[in-house]
Amino acid sequence: MSSAPVKAYLDILSQPSRAVLIFLRHNRIPHTVQTVALRRGEQKSAEFTRLNPMQKVPVIEHGGFVLTESDAILKYLATVYDVPEHWYPREPLQRARVDEYTAWHHSNTRPHAARVFFMEVLMPSMLGRPADPAKLQKAVDELEQTMQKLGEMFLKRQAFLCGDDISIADLLAICEIMQPLGGGRDILKNHPNLQSWRSRVQAALGEPFIEAHGILYRLRDKTAARL
Amino acid sequence: MSSAPVKAYLDILSQPSRAVLIFLRHNRIPHTVQTVALRRGEQKSAEFTRLNPMQKVPVIEHGGFVLTESDAILKYLATVYDVPEHWYPREPLQRARVDEYTAWHHSNTRPHAARVFFMEVLMPSMLGRPADPAKLQKAVDELEQTMQKLGEMFLKRQAFLCGDDISIADLLAICEIMQPLGGGRDILKNHPNLQSWRSRVQAALGEPFIEAHGILYRLRDKTAARL
Repeated sequence: MSSAPVKAYLDILSQPSRAVLIFLRHNRIPHTVQTVALRRGEQKSAEFTRLNPMQKVPVIEHGGFVLTESDAILKYLATVYDVPEHWYPREPLQRARVDEYTAWHHSNTRPHAARVFFMEVLMPSMLGRPADPAKLQKAVDELEQTMQKLGEMFLKRQAFLCGDDISIADLLAICEIMQPLGGGRDILKNHPNLQSWRSRVQAALGEPFIEAHGILYRLRDKTAARL
Repeated sequence: MSSAPVKAYLDILSQPSRAVLIFLRHNRIPHTVQTVALRRGEQKSAEFTRLNPMQKVPVIEHGGFVLTESDAILKYLATVYDVPEHWYPREPLQRARVDEYTAWHHSNTRPHAARVFFMEVLMPSMLGRPADPAKLQKAVDELEQTMQKLGEMFLKRQAFLCGDDISIADLLAICEIMQPLGGGRDILKNHPNLQSWRSRVQAALGEPFIEAHGILYRLRDKTAARL
């Protein structure tokens, strides 16, 4: 089963898509990429809707098996491919730590970081005017509290969110945390411990991280220049 | 490790707490329950905050290991205790289906069902007046769309959300879906296929389901009578 290449449907501007792409590339998992350009609404095409009725990326197709949700995709890939154990440890207590973060991620890091990016970058570009300053400030404050919890609850004095080595928890988190940089906002600027963590994550991910985020920021600069 | 009893911190009025309690009882996992009464703010006590800085239930403590997030707790319990395989299958494709639902759950079933319950039951009880009808209607519409997706994307023609037998996906989902009944609202009334699923889930869970929800509704009726 794991010998067939993975077909990944994604948009590099989507945070969870980048997490899946970086994981595939970093672990040299044979794959092909099918871009689904969200800004052109390609996720709503009849063909893509048949694949994923939720009309969201990322999606993978692997030997006829179609799977959505980046969290589930990363855990599946870590299970069926021969990737280093630290990504998704088999030891139950260590694995529970990763599952604890990923569950928390969906209601905290992801919506709060995405909301700031949406209000600061996407909304002005779509509507031609900046977001309401009071609403933006509220979103920024919520994100700031989330980053504080991330540092205190998960990172603590460890090198990575769930222990001494990088896991899919760090990968999902970093892709969300990088996103508001597209609006010129470094959401870790008051969090030196999380800044060090970001450097460690970037170093651990290497070239695939740099490439995925480089494309994102070049694309965004180009879009901004056209406005 | 799995020989020490599990200490579960929970509030029966919290949907994810009920999921954990039902799982423990149904699978006869040795456990003790420590109630953390949310309506009295006990989750904010210094003692509980040391255990879970997020100040949320459920939490388990198992031989010194403290774990938060119902999703992670259920997966951990299914791993370290000898429970039937169908709860969290080891086969990678079947497991991926459960992980796919639980990831989706956090951004869909959970917030949308909880919001309707909050607006219809908690807010009026706290503020002494009903929620804004337009906002409530919006929340109800969003929940209705979520139930439609649940039926089309997950249940399809299967007996349970992730296959032919019950899994922790069904357990997490049912506890959310039952909650708005506390406000007299059956959110499955337009969804006969999900109604049949609910009956199957209730039958599969048996007495622990009836008991956990019975307490919830009696408690709520008593609270309502006092208002």
